[in-house]
Amino acid sequence: MKFKLALAVFVAAASTAAIAGQAEDQQVKFRQSAYSFAAWNCSKIKSQVVEHPETYNKEQVVAAANSVAAVANSGLGALYGPGTDQATGWKKSRLKPEFFDKPEDAKKAAVAFNKEANELAKVAATGDVGAIKTQFGKVGETCKSCHDSFRIRD
Amino acid sequence: MKFKLALAVFVAAASTAAIAGQAEDQQVKFRQSAYSFAAWNCSKIKSQVVEHPETYNKEQVVAAANSVAAVANSGLGALYGPGTDQATGWKKSRLKPEFFDKPEDAKKAAVAFNKEANELAKVAATGDVGAIKTQFGKVGETCKSCHDSFRIRD
Repeated sequence: MKFKLALAVFVAAASTAAIAGQAEDQQVKFRQSAYSFAAWNCSKIKSQVVEHPETYNKEQVVAAANSVAAVANSGLGALYGPGTDQATGWKKSRLKPEFFDKPEDAKKAAVAFNKEANELAKVAATGDVGAIKTQFGKVGETCKSCHDSFRIRD
Repeated sequence: MKFKLALAVFVAAASTAAIAGQAEDQQVKFRQSAYSFAAWNCSKIKSQVVEHPETYNKEQVVAAANSVAAVANSGLGALYGPGTDQATGWKKSRLKPEFFDKPEDAKKAAVAFNKEANELAKVAATGDVGAIKTQFGKVGETCKSCHDSFRIRD
């Protein structure tokens, strides 16, 4: 009897795992896409305000900053379901398993990215290149801090 | 104006095509990321205003619509350099080679997506679910039209 029950639980767990699999892979795919889209936009800002300020184009930097803010505001938390540290989107997730043991730290990282990215969008609209550069640095710090805490190094 | 800018970047990208290979793969990776990020956000809007309107959450739909608009405004033209139909980002590009023979049609598709996505962001801010549903349909038409013209079927 005990064994039958254990087997039933096992089978149930197995079948949920199969479904969870796909859903988790999808979440990882979407979050890798979101961060890659943000990274592309950050690379444009970096190029135009840090490396080659002579190429600065206000409209492009505003669009890029709005894109980074859109990613930060898009509710990425929904893409961090349990088990997604073991899932594969476009590639294997690099999320550290301890992410799920430190919800307060994860929340802090999310709030910081959100705050600084939205501030960057505001500062970009002013066209003040020096201020954009400073604020862009603050966004970069929130990225790095979260990577240091929760992303497995390549 | 926005499109002229994208076109200028596009032409600039064309002139550096000689570098190719890696650069083209990178462009494809970023555009697949951008469209996947847009697709995730569209799926949220579809769920909340079309399939399950009882789950409608204004803040979430506004964020999702802003994200789709951000993708449309991000200067995707820069990611369509010559040869990118043969490149591999997260996966092999599905861009039809004839994309490069029909710049006017490509421009029309880009302008339409841009126009309707920005309108969706405006309409989302009003909170009028019926109007959002209608405008969301218009965005979907621009996606489908471009896919029909320029994306290889799976």
